[in-house]
Amino acid sequence: MPRIITVGAAQSGPIARTESRRDVVARRIEQLRQAHRQGCDLVVFTEVALTAFFPHWWIEDEAELDAWFEHQLPGPDTQSLFDEARRLGVSFYLGYAELAYEHGQKHRYNSSVLIDSQGQIAGKYRKLHLPGHVEHRPHNPFQNLEQRYFEIGNLPLSTTNVCGAQVGMCICNDRRWPETYRVLTLAGAELIVLGYNTPDQIPEHPAMNHLVDFHNRLSMQAGAYQNGVWVVGVAKAGVEEGVSQIGQSMIIAPSGEVVAMSSTREDELIVYRCDLDMVTYYRSLFNFAKNRRPEFYESLTNRPS
Amino acid sequence: MPRIITVGAAQSGPIARTESRRDVVARRIEQLRQAHRQGCDLVVFTEVALTAFFPHWWIEDEAELDAWFEHQLPGPDTQSLFDEARRLGVSFYLGYAELAYEHGQKHRYNSSVLIDSQGQIAGKYRKLHLPGHVEHRPHNPFQNLEQRYFEIGNLPLSTTNVCGAQVGMCICNDRRWPETYRVLTLAGAELIVLGYNTPDQIPEHPAMNHLVDFHNRLSMQAGAYQNGVWVVGVAKAGVEEGVSQIGQSMIIAPSGEVVAMSSTREDELIVYRCDLDMVTYYRSLFNFAKNRRPEFYESLTNRPS
Repeated sequence: MPRIITVGAAQSGPIARTESRRDVVARRIEQLRQAHRQGCDLVVFTEVALTAFFPHWWIEDEAELDAWFEHQLPGPDTQSLFDEARRLGVSFYLGYAELAYEHGQKHRYNSSVLIDSQGQIAGKYRKLHLPGHVEHRPHNPFQNLEQRYFEIGNLPLSTTNVCGAQVGMCICNDRRWPETYRVLTLAGAELIVLGYNTPDQIPEHPAMNHLVDFHNRLSMQAGAYQNGVWVVGVAKAGVEEGVSQIGQSMIIAPSGEVVAMSSTREDELIVYRCDLDMVTYYRSLFNFAKNRRPEFYESLTNRPS
Repeated sequence: MPRIITVGAAQSGPIARTESRRDVVARRIEQLRQAHRQGCDLVVFTEVALTAFFPHWWIEDEAELDAWFEHQLPGPDTQSLFDEARRLGVSFYLGYAELAYEHGQKHRYNSSVLIDSQGQIAGKYRKLHLPGHVEHRPHNPFQNLEQRYFEIGNLPLSTTNVCGAQVGMCICNDRRWPETYRVLTLAGAELIVLGYNTPDQIPEHPAMNHLVDFHNRLSMQAGAYQNGVWVVGVAKAGVEEGVSQIGQSMIIAPSGEVVAMSSTREDELIVYRCDLDMVTYYRSLFNFAKNRRPEFYESLTNRPS
């Protein structure tokens, strides 16, 4: 019997800076219901899916910065999303800005959680490959202050069983690093899910603007094919607070083929029935245990001196 | 001043089983001369560039098998290629079947060398990721007995300076493994060169036949972009001893863009002026030393238990 997991990639259109968390959650719930009507087992939301992508502007005041973060999850404004998912029996991936107290210290991460069909947090991840910069660049048309507002994640790239599939999580810029897919695959991933906020122009590198869609697709397609894994990448799309972001949320088969893609830059759900036997098929072709040569890969884990 | 290296990808059409080494070398010399007329600094030949790709059929007799290998390089039949390259001042990459005596034992490898503009062997590599099978599969339309005829390489993925560029070598199936590009890049590669013999059908996996060109392109484009490195992939193309092989030899920029591609499945030379400053540009974007997270990649170098 084929092992099918029906996945919905729930792209988000822009979120206004002034939009309340409650209003955004209502949009997410609407997508969850639509996904349920289309038979989805798992819904993948984007990175920082509950607010505008605030690293695009400078925030000096600590209280103002903290207000963009979730202090608990679920919390008062997000509980309804978890409740509705449990009611529908739908799992989901959610990217969010996480404010955490660890050993009495405040920490901020660019995080994601995987919620099982009972509405429980089954897995958690904190972004490892933070793009952007630390310093104020007021003369840019927009900034990417992720390296200022977030710490580097301190959780491993790992997998979680939801909907009968081993699911690995990563976030946005992680998808450009081949190590991400490989580490997740060696940890058993059959499906890798991720969200992204990716502008269609790069202030420091305008010569690359026309390649942004291509690089998005190329990275995820290669990650899928070279690891024999399903990949679901979900955008925050459209013009948000003056920053125009790519869409092209997509579901990619272990063959590397794009099997579903969004065609708008608004809230949009795309759905595909992912056959996990394709993973077995491609994995057997590569046969990592037999054909990888880790004894020649030692430099991959060397730390820069 | 831009650092330009002009590279020729010298695709090979089929080589008949009965074609003499001397005749094949004459074809390679003709390509070398054409490349020189087009201003090439470096010519990239394919994998096992001097004979038909004999792993496609079963050979029982050891002497018959050994006859497909180079017992020395340069040897009596290949010296003229090295001489002509030195005369023209052109460097080249050459894939060949290598018969070597190490510690008094005979070994067979699927190897490549990098020849500097003085006609000297500057670098050497032996294929690490051997595809195919060990056992006789007489009912297949053709076989791939690489795992029978070759040993796994025992030389590191490393780089060599030729023509003022750090050049990394790999061979055929190595290109499907993201580790190959990353290890070469961490070793300083600005340009990765490789040859391949890739059939356009896979007897054990006919459902993948229509994807062979796509997977070839996808792997090399991702390797180029994700490492900010030039990639040159060169085919043995066309119908050789009943086996139809893909062409699409290509030169790929550090942007991942295919900037030159063959359009035949015959001997064909494609040329591109590769700007090594593009490597610097893409490398600075990724900034491996700062943004890779090797402490989370440990599983990449674990050996299977």
